[in-house]
Amino acid sequence: MEDRTYVVTGAASGIGAATAGRLERSGAKVIRCDVRDADVLADLTTQEGRAALVAGVTAASGGLIDGLVAVAGIALPSELTVRLNFFGTIATLEGLRPLLTASPQPRAVAVSSLSAIVAADEGLVRSCLTMDEDAAAAAARALVESGQGRAVYPSSKLALDRWLRRAALSWAQDGIPLNAVAPGVVDTETARTTFLDDPRTRALVAAAMPQPLGFPGPVEAIASLLAWTVSADNAFMTGQILYADGGAEATLRAGSTR
Amino acid sequence: MEDRTYVVTGAASGIGAATAGRLERSGAKVIRCDVRDADVLADLTTQEGRAALVAGVTAASGGLIDGLVAVAGIALPSELTVRLNFFGTIATLEGLRPLLTASPQPRAVAVSSLSAIVAADEGLVRSCLTMDEDAAAAAARALVESGQGRAVYPSSKLALDRWLRRAALSWAQDGIPLNAVAPGVVDTETARTTFLDDPRTRALVAAAMPQPLGFPGPVEAIASLLAWTVSADNAFMTGQILYADGGAEATLRAGSTR
Repeated sequence: MEDRTYVVTGAASGIGAATAGRLERSGAKVIRCDVRDADVLADLTTQEGRAALVAGVTAASGGLIDGLVAVAGIALPSELTVRLNFFGTIATLEGLRPLLTASPQPRAVAVSSLSAIVAADEGLVRSCLTMDEDAAAAAARALVESGQGRAVYPSSKLALDRWLRRAALSWAQDGIPLNAVAPGVVDTETARTTFLDDPRTRALVAAAMPQPLGFPGPVEAIASLLAWTVSADNAFMTGQILYADGGAEATLRAGSTR
Repeated sequence: MEDRTYVVTGAASGIGAATAGRLERSGAKVIRCDVRDADVLADLTTQEGRAALVAGVTAASGGLIDGLVAVAGIALPSELTVRLNFFGTIATLEGLRPLLTASPQPRAVAVSSLSAIVAADEGLVRSCLTMDEDAAAAAARALVESGQGRAVYPSSKLALDRWLRRAALSWAQDGIPLNAVAPGVVDTETARTTFLDDPRTRALVAAAMPQPLGFPGPVEAIASLLAWTVSADNAFMTGQILYADGGAEATLRAGSTR
């Protein structure tokens, strides 16, 4: 039995649910957060929801958490995707950071996406990184209105990657490993309804994200990696974007050791 | 209890010994390989030793292994470092690949080094990648003779990284995740005798490899990550160079998401 308390956002479904379940089966306490079916209900697209998350987790944990797994995200061609995936995730990490510093072995991880290296819009990425949420939301709306809504999700994740690479240095000074896991296409209900069930979209995505180990991949493989990154065992890795994508990143950037 | 058979090279000390011990404690069978104090004795700097490794592991395993952890390596300013770290590691991976293909969930991982991104010599790296071992050994000797022997070790690891990024695509076609773990400076006996015990060298290395999470880092953190990469859980990550370095890579390349 593991004597650790974890927070998982996006825990009601998909990767978040699988990760929460895995951590619970290891004997840990898990505080599940989502907009429904969770211990702490919070809509991370809004300032009020972000405050509700911090208040709810503080109350549920007593003020100390050992690991944070920030999964909550959406893939819609909408400004909400930027508000949730980028600003909501950063608010989650920074908002719960004080609770992590109370742990003797604190860890945090966010979920990114392999699509960040495939289809992001640099303008939207830069707009996010100004940290002006309304401006970034407007930039996302402009992309949607010009027919490039598909770029919003990858851009929100690439912006998160860039933010996290730098933030990890500050977190490391506090002794908190902070990493990202970037999945390829995995078999979640959301992925099925969003594009896997549509043969044409499925073929387009499969071509853009070549996954020699399988398309789609197993959700449990992502949950397992997320669980390792926030375990006490991970005392020495930080600031990494960990591609768990069936080989897509290695295929697309085979000539680079990054 | 885990019903898997693992091979660990370099298992007599340091990261290899820690990894072998960890896998054994999980209940797995481990075939320890090294030049001494091991189940299979083999000097991977020579063709004869590489053949002895394959023959010995084949005999000890019955022809099927589930995971391979290629740790064997040295950090001397010598052509032996290129022969072992690059050519010996590739011979290990390719030589034992047929035994892995007999497993329902095969995995392989090699140990690289954070130093590969800091201090490698591009000429030696390219020489290795011609796959002409004697030519690469001659290039290493030339570096040593010109007073740049310190570049040999990082170069052997960067060459391994580049080889592995491409090889992983072929391995993925066979369903075998193949990754590398690149440690920063960790607290092994070899690291102590090589440079940690010498204040001046220790300070030089610490400056070149900034590790906000600790210098040196804990060996068990590397062993834990290696063990995860070859576990059945890792069904979907391949071709990755996983920096477990206390934040050195993230510090040195903070402006890049790679």
